[in-house]
Amino acid sequence: MYRTHTCGELIISNKGEKVTLAGWVQRLREFGGMTFIDLRDRYGITQLVFNMEADADLCMQARKLGREFVIQVTGTVAERSNKNPKMPTGDIEIIAENITVLNSSDIPPFTIEENSDGGDELRMKYRYLDLRRQNVRSNIILRHRMAQEVRKYLDGEGFIEVETPVLIKSTPEGARDFVVPSRLHHGEFYALPQSPQTFKQLLMVAGFDKYFQIVKCFRDEDLRADRQPEFTQIDCEMSFIHQDDILNTFEGLARHLFRQIKGITFSDSFPRMPYDEAMSRYGTDKPDIRFGMCITEMTRKVQGRSFPLFDSAEYVGAICAAGCGAYTRKQLDELTEYVKRPQIGAKGLVYVRIEADGTAKSSVDKFYPPDVLKSFAVITGAGAGDLILMIAGERNHTLNALGELRLEMGKRMGLRDPSVYAPLWVVDFPLLEWDEETKRFYAKHHPFTAPKPEDLEYMISDPGRVHANAYDLVINGTEIGGGSIRIHDGDIQSLMFKTLGFTEEEARHQFGFLLNAFRFGAPPHGGIAFGFDRWAAILGGSDTIRDFIAFPKNNQARDVMIDTPSTIKKEQLDELGIAIKWIENQ
Amino acid sequence: MYRTHTCGELIISNKGEKVTLAGWVQRLREFGGMTFIDLRDRYGITQLVFNMEADADLCMQARKLGREFVIQVTGTVAERSNKNPKMPTGDIEIIAENITVLNSSDIPPFTIEENSDGGDELRMKYRYLDLRRQNVRSNIILRHRMAQEVRKYLDGEGFIEVETPVLIKSTPEGARDFVVPSRLHHGEFYALPQSPQTFKQLLMVAGFDKYFQIVKCFRDEDLRADRQPEFTQIDCEMSFIHQDDILNTFEGLARHLFRQIKGITFSDSFPRMPYDEAMSRYGTDKPDIRFGMCITEMTRKVQGRSFPLFDSAEYVGAICAAGCGAYTRKQLDELTEYVKRPQIGAKGLVYVRIEADGTAKSSVDKFYPPDVLKSFAVITGAGAGDLILMIAGERNHTLNALGELRLEMGKRMGLRDPSVYAPLWVVDFPLLEWDEETKRFYAKHHPFTAPKPEDLEYMISDPGRVHANAYDLVINGTEIGGGSIRIHDGDIQSLMFKTLGFTEEEARHQFGFLLNAFRFGAPPHGGIAFGFDRWAAILGGSDTIRDFIAFPKNNQARDVMIDTPSTIKKEQLDELGIAIKWIENQ
Repeated sequence: MYRTHTCGELIISNKGEKVTLAGWVQRLREFGGMTFIDLRDRYGITQLVFNMEADADLCMQARKLGREFVIQVTGTVAERSNKNPKMPTGDIEIIAENITVLNSSDIPPFTIEENSDGGDELRMKYRYLDLRRQNVRSNIILRHRMAQEVRKYLDGEGFIEVETPVLIKSTPEGARDFVVPSRLHHGEFYALPQSPQTFKQLLMVAGFDKYFQIVKCFRDEDLRADRQPEFTQIDCEMSFIHQDDILNTFEGLARHLFRQIKGITFSDSFPRMPYDEAMSRYGTDKPDIRFGMCITEMTRKVQGRSFPLFDSAEYVGAICAAGCGAYTRKQLDELTEYVKRPQIGAKGLVYVRIEADGTAKSSVDKFYPPDVLKSFAVITGAGAGDLILMIAGERNHTLNALGELRLEMGKRMGLRDPSVYAPLWVVDFPLLEWDEETKRFYAKHHPFTAPKPEDLEYMISDPGRVHANAYDLVINGTEIGGGSIRIHDGDIQSLMFKTLGFTEEEARHQFGFLLNAFRFGAPPHGGIAFGFDRWAAILGGSDTIRDFIAFPKNNQARDVMIDTPSTIKKEQLDELGIAIKWIENQ
Repeated sequence: MYRTHTCGELIISNKGEKVTLAGWVQRLREFGGMTFIDLRDRYGITQLVFNMEADADLCMQARKLGREFVIQVTGTVAERSNKNPKMPTGDIEIIAENITVLNSSDIPPFTIEENSDGGDELRMKYRYLDLRRQNVRSNIILRHRMAQEVRKYLDGEGFIEVETPVLIKSTPEGARDFVVPSRLHHGEFYALPQSPQTFKQLLMVAGFDKYFQIVKCFRDEDLRADRQPEFTQIDCEMSFIHQDDILNTFEGLARHLFRQIKGITFSDSFPRMPYDEAMSRYGTDKPDIRFGMCITEMTRKVQGRSFPLFDSAEYVGAICAAGCGAYTRKQLDELTEYVKRPQIGAKGLVYVRIEADGTAKSSVDKFYPPDVLKSFAVITGAGAGDLILMIAGERNHTLNALGELRLEMGKRMGLRDPSVYAPLWVVDFPLLEWDEETKRFYAKHHPFTAPKPEDLEYMISDPGRVHANAYDLVINGTEIGGGSIRIHDGDIQSLMFKTLGFTEEEARHQFGFLLNAFRFGAPPHGGIAFGFDRWAAILGGSDTIRDFIAFPKNNQARDVMIDTPSTIKKEQLDELGIAIKWIENQ
């Protein structure tokens, strides 16, 4: 080793010891005849002292060091006169006796500080320097700790980690696959997995009973702000279980992680909310339940008063923002603009203020007399000083808009404290989702999700009515995982494919191996998969998964550090039996 | 849960308990009025009993069950009259009171027994049934245990597991890359990593200090018997270390695994053998040191006696097979055939038997008088009853042949006991390897391996002479891991690329980001990577890595279960901007 200690461990009890450290020059300061260097490694920062009077040569050598030079230093631990209580090593410094430059450094293109002066693109290009910043590094270390704790918990629960293949088969259902041309079989391709879904089900057929894997998955999507073409899942499956067993097991995992990583213990069970309730009370399938402000349906209460916007609406709903009765015209206009943005698309916003004296004032006073407005207050639970906000329109669309408005109000009212965690199970999802454009049903989770047995009868007559034994784990309004009880019966699986518009031949071509497997004694099973990047971000108190990935891609799916994707040699293409079609690009 | 207990846990102390089990019907036997079913799950097998007299309906129901049916059974734990001491549950049986068929099964295409009647191809096609066999399952569980223990050890040593990207950049050096066409950037490709080599070095530049990852890697090679296009590495890197630190740290890992997985503790340090010694004494860079029988060079001793084969040879070497002096003509002919096989390619085999009375008999008696033959015995350490085997030819080629012969003799003599483990570090590898065909040097490890400082002076004048701080961990003649101290100096890295025949432009195009990174304070660093599949196979007592991979590909790189690679839709190709060149196939 080039060192006897790290830069994070020396304390006052080491006083007088002769030590050798190695690391990077974080900072160099001169005070008269003294030179101070902050030496940094992964473990911390230790102050080195050089005294011109004691050793002029050494001190001159130190003064020539640049930022980010890599050095090895030997010296004696001394007590600081000017202690720094913010640093674990702040009580001591090293009286340097010898330094060796292990490597020099160009001047880095941005400062290696918690608040760097580097822009996003620049920091990504020099990600290896960005990763030297303490906050970025601690994100990656948090992720490491989480991965170890996930494994510790699941291993302890009897789960077996099994690696499933990365070179698999392309399936047309779902998002786009990344594909890999085969050199040995020209014209044929592997696909990278969007998830190990079918393999984990095959492992259940194989009798593995409890499986997990922390595994890279791939989706060739047009990237939204916070998506990555490659992402990591905590993928799990169990046999001989009911939905409750899964929820209990993985609530256990979540509790374990919160306890080990954040020191947070939840005294109560995570609440379980049916999908329909989540939609009608929060306008979303991933409610942020750190605060209330639930949606109240007002349709019947407001109609028949000659207000055209409400009378013509399929649905009218309201939220009550406690204590916001004094919102100014300007603030209310801002909110109106907010809900009218194309991403939300509400037609407008109606407000009712409840004044301090209990009287109500509204933007629709002329349609609704004071006693009716007061009845609104009763229904929505609004009291003196509160603000009722109402939106009308098509039901789902309006619920969604109210849900967004609720989050916005929660933010403005300071109700979304990132240090508070409110986990929630959303259960009883619909099995299918109708797509207006293609005029067909799609699987809400995926085609292997089991319909609720009591809804089986509607599979043909009214598929939209069928609910599934499917569930999501939501934390603070973010879905961090979801899963379902699977179909283990070949006939029901065939029915499902049929409902999704697969011909028997297509189903056999794509999933023949799974349908085959189901013929040989598939056990009842189900599972869940968590977005590991996102869970790490949430525990790290961030919205951005990119901060928790060592080498992320940008929103063009490009790694600007290594410059990929990039061209390959013609011989490689020839070997693979493929050609690039330039015409359409030129 | 569908069960109160697993099929592996009930013992005599559970006698009288009412239990529910779920699992697969392994075997069904009828004895007069009794029906016995062996119910199997991941955890074991439990015997169920049905009594025609007690409950005829239930018994008839049981008799209708087929092999691999999935059932749930409720009953009472009873003591067996006919105990089976080989089974953990062999003291008890379940007096069945109720059964529910959870799923039926077609008759499986092969028997689900340790010794199955299914051929290789069939078992691969139905891998989910193959995985039900206890021996196959326990291989996968062994692998799981190893993965957990690797992480436990390395996490305990302060290593951080960091996920490196899978969609990276193609590099022409080394084996062929699998590539992934980019839809967003037509004409450009990602490549799948052959190893995370450059990323782990960047993590060292980033100051991560100690990194590891258990990670999938990919090589598009023409597959040899026991290679897989996707395989798993335990990939590790450390900073501020010397070679000894790495060897000690990972010897610690190996000891930890042997202790935790096999219950084996090694009292001594693993021996460390220079590459040159391995080659000259064992004829290979991965010696099996479970036995001696080392190679003795005989060149000078045998030449000048008018035996043309020896006199014309660059090198003559011998091994001494103790106690094989009585080998018959037929056995000796077999050995001669063995070394003359094209894979080994020796021109012939010369033997000298040492008889019980100490006299020597040889196939070359007429060239070598008895006293000379006796001197051979002295040199090779042969005594009465031993057999000296000699091969002559070009030096490296002959050493290789002697190495193979040594292994063959070790096998014949029962010296390669699979329950004995002999780990060995091979060190001081040459930095470069000359390739006659392309007339250039190739990196023996990879282009980032550091030359030994004392050999730096030969980098230009005599590159073949330069040794590296590179090392392999060898167990029982199999290389399970290798690594090196890396170059952390940009100038030496440039010199290395130059020696390998890269132009400056090529080097910059391929590894520019790494050379760039080295300009910003790269610490001294080094690492190692282990073949996880192979290590699992060795600890599992097998030669075949495929047995330790849940869903392996065959030697055509094909997964016959899911039938991949396979064709994809024309729309997918169009979106990717590529076309298939059919001409050459048709």
